[in-house]
Amino acid sequence: MSQAGLRGVAAGQTAICTCGAGGRALHYRGYSIESLAAGATFEEVAWLLTRGELPSAAELESYRARLRGMRGLPAKLREALERIPAEAHPMDVIRTGASMLGALEPEGDFSRQTDSADRLLAALPGVIGYWSAFASSGKRVETETDDDSLAGHALRMTTGAAPTAERLRAMDVSLILYAEHEFNASTFVARVVAATLSDFHSAIVSAIGALRGPLHGGANEAAMALIGKFADAEAARAGVLEMLKRKEKIMGFGHAVYTVRDPRSDIIKEQARILSAGHPRGELLEVSEAVEAVMRAEKNLFPNLDFYSASSYHFMGVPTPLFTPIFAVSRTTGWAAHIFEQRADNKLIRPGAEYIGPEEREFVPLEKRG
Amino acid sequence: MSQAGLRGVAAGQTAICTCGAGGRALHYRGYSIESLAAGATFEEVAWLLTRGELPSAAELESYRARLRGMRGLPAKLREALERIPAEAHPMDVIRTGASMLGALEPEGDFSRQTDSADRLLAALPGVIGYWSAFASSGKRVETETDDDSLAGHALRMTTGAAPTAERLRAMDVSLILYAEHEFNASTFVARVVAATLSDFHSAIVSAIGALRGPLHGGANEAAMALIGKFADAEAARAGVLEMLKRKEKIMGFGHAVYTVRDPRSDIIKEQARILSAGHPRGELLEVSEAVEAVMRAEKNLFPNLDFYSASSYHFMGVPTPLFTPIFAVSRTTGWAAHIFEQRADNKLIRPGAEYIGPEEREFVPLEKRG
Repeated sequence: MSQAGLRGVAAGQTAICTCGAGGRALHYRGYSIESLAAGATFEEVAWLLTRGELPSAAELESYRARLRGMRGLPAKLREALERIPAEAHPMDVIRTGASMLGALEPEGDFSRQTDSADRLLAALPGVIGYWSAFASSGKRVETETDDDSLAGHALRMTTGAAPTAERLRAMDVSLILYAEHEFNASTFVARVVAATLSDFHSAIVSAIGALRGPLHGGANEAAMALIGKFADAEAARAGVLEMLKRKEKIMGFGHAVYTVRDPRSDIIKEQARILSAGHPRGELLEVSEAVEAVMRAEKNLFPNLDFYSASSYHFMGVPTPLFTPIFAVSRTTGWAAHIFEQRADNKLIRPGAEYIGPEEREFVPLEKRG
Repeated sequence: MSQAGLRGVAAGQTAICTCGAGGRALHYRGYSIESLAAGATFEEVAWLLTRGELPSAAELESYRARLRGMRGLPAKLREALERIPAEAHPMDVIRTGASMLGALEPEGDFSRQTDSADRLLAALPGVIGYWSAFASSGKRVETETDDDSLAGHALRMTTGAAPTAERLRAMDVSLILYAEHEFNASTFVARVVAATLSDFHSAIVSAIGALRGPLHGGANEAAMALIGKFADAEAARAGVLEMLKRKEKIMGFGHAVYTVRDPRSDIIKEQARILSAGHPRGELLEVSEAVEAVMRAEKNLFPNLDFYSASSYHFMGVPTPLFTPIFAVSRTTGWAAHIFEQRADNKLIRPGAEYIGPEEREFVPLEKRG
């Protein structure tokens, strides 16, 4: 018997993350997601994931400076990005950009894996920003910004503007929430690739390919498409009831590993609430709350991280097609941690399969076929 | 308890392939690998894998013509390839080329998946050939060759010359042998990516990233490096005994799913034998046989497909760094079949993990850290 989807099968050991304990908890290396989102910055979390412990003040300062210094894109990568048209899927762009970076700046020896991880984390926002500006207006933007944080840099690269303090904080929180999630599909893919002893970039490129799927990273964009079509809370309530009646899928609710609630949802919802004040489409918060209420009442389902991420990103000024690429930037830290961990105690990941095809049959030469 | 490497865990159902039955058998959709290698051409096998049955003569003729017509590379892809330096890893090139093709010619709706599969199979030899010629000599080669078969096209793209009848047959056999192998690491990665409902190109790009690993597709290049350093059979015998004494790993022997023998080894060895006659380094056959004899006598290990593929590809004139890219071209057919199969009855693949990290711990604010 095959174990479809490998649900409940422990495919390996990890010291990086637990999710779903009690149907509601998420911890990165023992720290609750609530404590990290309230007390840490994204760079502290990125360090925690990739180095194992929270950084000291001195470590944090040098890590921030290091990431800031790695934002420039090689000329040949920029030239390749200029050849991808505006109508391309942004996840195809970031996948291609990460792959090209791996061809231009190969990891080489695994002793350089941390360099490759830091470089990719620092460079990927620029890959998105450089391509989207060039594709839409032919403008060659400078990716070596002097934004202090990765959140600020990511906001400038995706919105084209200097971020406000509120947007900066909201993006920082969002990056923390999206950074890591145990053996989800993209992380598992990164580990299977790493287990062949392939290079760091191949593992990240593969993970980006998995995150692109609408059953995985694409859900925040689908949630935006949903809320974006309602003018107010009343229209949302009626609209979602109608969709449920037609058995349409409402994206951004329920979760494979959380059964009680997604602990990240209230955290990002609070950021959405702060950002909604004074925003020209601030009513999207009430629209979202109306959808949440209907889903609780009708389906007993809770919002997951993706649902209020949609309105938050919209309030931050991020174009909807760039939601998932930002998710990819953040998750690069979790992927990196898992690649390091897989390599440290490696075994090729090679499952079996249950065969349901034809029995052995005799080959029929071409001239005797119908 | 975690099931490290998922060895023995059936991760899903498949009707495409069984391997390892009796410790020695391989069947594609019920046909033995021996009967396919002896009686079919690669295009028949590619059709069998991606369409489910052997083609009729008319289907085969139109499939061959279709693949021939899909060899041209878009200008923007060629321009991107021109920006990857000669020292790049060829698997990084083919990974980037496949990703760029996905950005330029997206699959769009899954109803177009067969088009994407045929296009990638036809275009990938040109990606390798165009880049390697441009990177080494600045020459822009025409990838729209009029070679009748994919074997001939792949040989022209990797050797730069029109293939002889013997080399053509040997490459055709090799492509058949490398086309499919159940839930190996790269194919499993393609299925995990496909299961997020991501696009066809993401799944193939990810599989290429996995195949790049030396524990997976890179083994034929490692086997070449081994035999290439011995002048004759006697030197090989002494050298391998010495390596075994030093506990060095000899690549190309034994297999995770075959316990008695790899049924593909004798088939490719026969091609190596035919090609060795009159080749200036024909003694590599005797060198290989000497290594095989030592490995049987000392370790009770049999050669797998990769071992005699090394001398075969060398005799065909294929540069060693292009061995694994050719493997990737061939395996694109198996990957495609598995992507189609995964999509036809999809469930997100999301295993669990056994947590071995720190217990819950209290967050320490930055100013209170050491």
